[in-house]
Amino acid sequence: MAERMGKQTSRLSRPPRVESFAACVGKKEGHGPLGSLFDEVHEDDTLGQKNWEKAESALFGAAVNRCLEKANLKPENARFLLGGDLLNQLAASCFACRDLGIPFLGLFGACSTMAESLAVGSMLLDGGSADRLVCAASSHFCTAERQFRFPLELGTQRPPSAQWTVTGAGAVLLHEQDMAAGVYPAVTHVTVGKPIDFGVTDANNMGAAMAPAAAATIRQHFYDASRTVDDYDFIVTGDLGRVGSELLRELLKKEGASLPEKKHIDCGLQIFAPEQDSHAGGSGCGCSASVLCAKLLPDMIAGRIRRMLFVATGALMSTTTGNEGENIPGIAHAVAFERMEA
Amino acid sequence: MAERMGKQTSRLSRPPRVESFAACVGKKEGHGPLGSLFDEVHEDDTLGQKNWEKAESALFGAAVNRCLEKANLKPENARFLLGGDLLNQLAASCFACRDLGIPFLGLFGACSTMAESLAVGSMLLDGGSADRLVCAASSHFCTAERQFRFPLELGTQRPPSAQWTVTGAGAVLLHEQDMAAGVYPAVTHVTVGKPIDFGVTDANNMGAAMAPAAAATIRQHFYDASRTVDDYDFIVTGDLGRVGSELLRELLKKEGASLPEKKHIDCGLQIFAPEQDSHAGGSGCGCSASVLCAKLLPDMIAGRIRRMLFVATGALMSTTTGNEGENIPGIAHAVAFERMEA
Repeated sequence: MAERMGKQTSRLSRPPRVESFAACVGKKEGHGPLGSLFDEVHEDDTLGQKNWEKAESALFGAAVNRCLEKANLKPENARFLLGGDLLNQLAASCFACRDLGIPFLGLFGACSTMAESLAVGSMLLDGGSADRLVCAASSHFCTAERQFRFPLELGTQRPPSAQWTVTGAGAVLLHEQDMAAGVYPAVTHVTVGKPIDFGVTDANNMGAAMAPAAAATIRQHFYDASRTVDDYDFIVTGDLGRVGSELLRELLKKEGASLPEKKHIDCGLQIFAPEQDSHAGGSGCGCSASVLCAKLLPDMIAGRIRRMLFVATGALMSTTTGNEGENIPGIAHAVAFERMEA
Repeated sequence: MAERMGKQTSRLSRPPRVESFAACVGKKEGHGPLGSLFDEVHEDDTLGQKNWEKAESALFGAAVNRCLEKANLKPENARFLLGGDLLNQLAASCFACRDLGIPFLGLFGACSTMAESLAVGSMLLDGGSADRLVCAASSHFCTAERQFRFPLELGTQRPPSAQWTVTGAGAVLLHEQDMAAGVYPAVTHVTVGKPIDFGVTDANNMGAAMAPAAAATIRQHFYDASRTVDDYDFIVTGDLGRVGSELLRELLKKEGASLPEKKHIDCGLQIFAPEQDSHAGGSGCGCSASVLCAKLLPDMIAGRIRRMLFVATGALMSTTTGNEGENIPGIAHAVAFERMEA
């Protein structure tokens, strides 16, 4: 039985173990600073598919399959797949899951989806409803641009606050049991976030829309779990980018929970180099999912990170709500990972 | 700890109790055969909002608020809200949850969302991560028509296999504890479904797209839980409508698990009268959600139903995947309710 801490946090009684993970990305991500760390870099962003949606779906499926293969497992060994993406009606994950044949719980938390899937998945494992499950999320620059912004062919100019949607997918296999011997990351706590509306309406400034939600969830996690920044090697945010990351640190400082820059990793600022013209950084569900699986979890196994709070953030908007003048609320879910040695 | 049964089913060790429920609907639903049973009938389908999306969001919020009020509770008493809708990026539920301020787990299972939220919510309660949570889903005829089909103003003719998206929302409050005295429905088992692709491509024949998924999940539930049709008073499907309901019974018959017509309730065939011109029946996340909360759960409390399997079905499609010639896979999740007396 999980222990409920405060209003939004659960401490898992049997911290689910990260059994395997994989990240598959597109060409631009492959040419970025983390290029050599991804399991698959697809030089052809279509993945040989005839449209972008099928390409993203193939990328989602590739990450899940790779993740299972690395543990010498097959799709039928996973009890559930929890995941989602940014496409209308979760097209990428639904169709990937049709081909995988794994019982599917579709989730939507915009770019916070990877944290949402890890949070829900960990609670289900702790409760005994699954022995092993996959958490996954994806995004694709070409599906996102045309769905949320402009046709690619238009060559629209992007403001400096705009982020670049990552073409990538990440999948994490969680197992209910710890290991008899070895080193592994495990999920010890999860904090479920609330939608927070800071009045942002600019779809080219998602970082500002999401930072207040990240601040709220991080503060709540500290409060609920009686922890501080000092309890973590790093606080990892999903895709706040340059603008949102600064805003998050400002907000936390105001609230008396200073996050030193050297303890803050934003996945959106890891995945592209400045010369890659991604403006304020990477974004999309696939950003935090692929950086987690390519860089952060391996860093935990290698001992470079012993404890981290993974806080993916999402901007809750659609083109319809945007056109109707609605604000863009943010949401953030937090998952605490700890390095275990057996 | 939940007991895993077979490949897809969990038996809950502490069956979560239905503490409260509410259904709020629009005018056409209010004038249908269940009209007097709904908690709120909004004669004005705009709910006083300036667009349909805000109207659906208001309906979602109304159902959640009503459900909490009926238990003399406030939003802060619910640890999580699990829910979703059919709109792109879950606009209705995300914005409703922003206003409610409840920690939010967004789910997408198309029209199976109510069953998905009850399934996940029950497993989270059983695992101790929440004491009390709300499961909810909504749909609105006007948001769905213009998003998935044609502008309302076009007055497009509908084929006989087409269904009518219900303007409605349902919310169920689940509590981890049983009652000291009284009668209540509780969730005893959940079965998580897989996407099933039967090759259907006609967006005007969702019943046919979803029936194979319903058949697969029902059969799997029986197999996993060692139960048969005889163990239930009713098998309840979400919104298969006339065409899908017949197909479901045919499919089950072929597979040796006959479902007699008198033991089958389809929410889509309950909500409108034939003279209401809804063709093959009601559909949408709000169809099964509102019929569950207005009719089926009260029937359980009254003793007219002692055990039912609630199987909401979803058609996994978007306008993009439809335009790209993709099939429409279906998904169905099952939740077993049992009447408890203490």
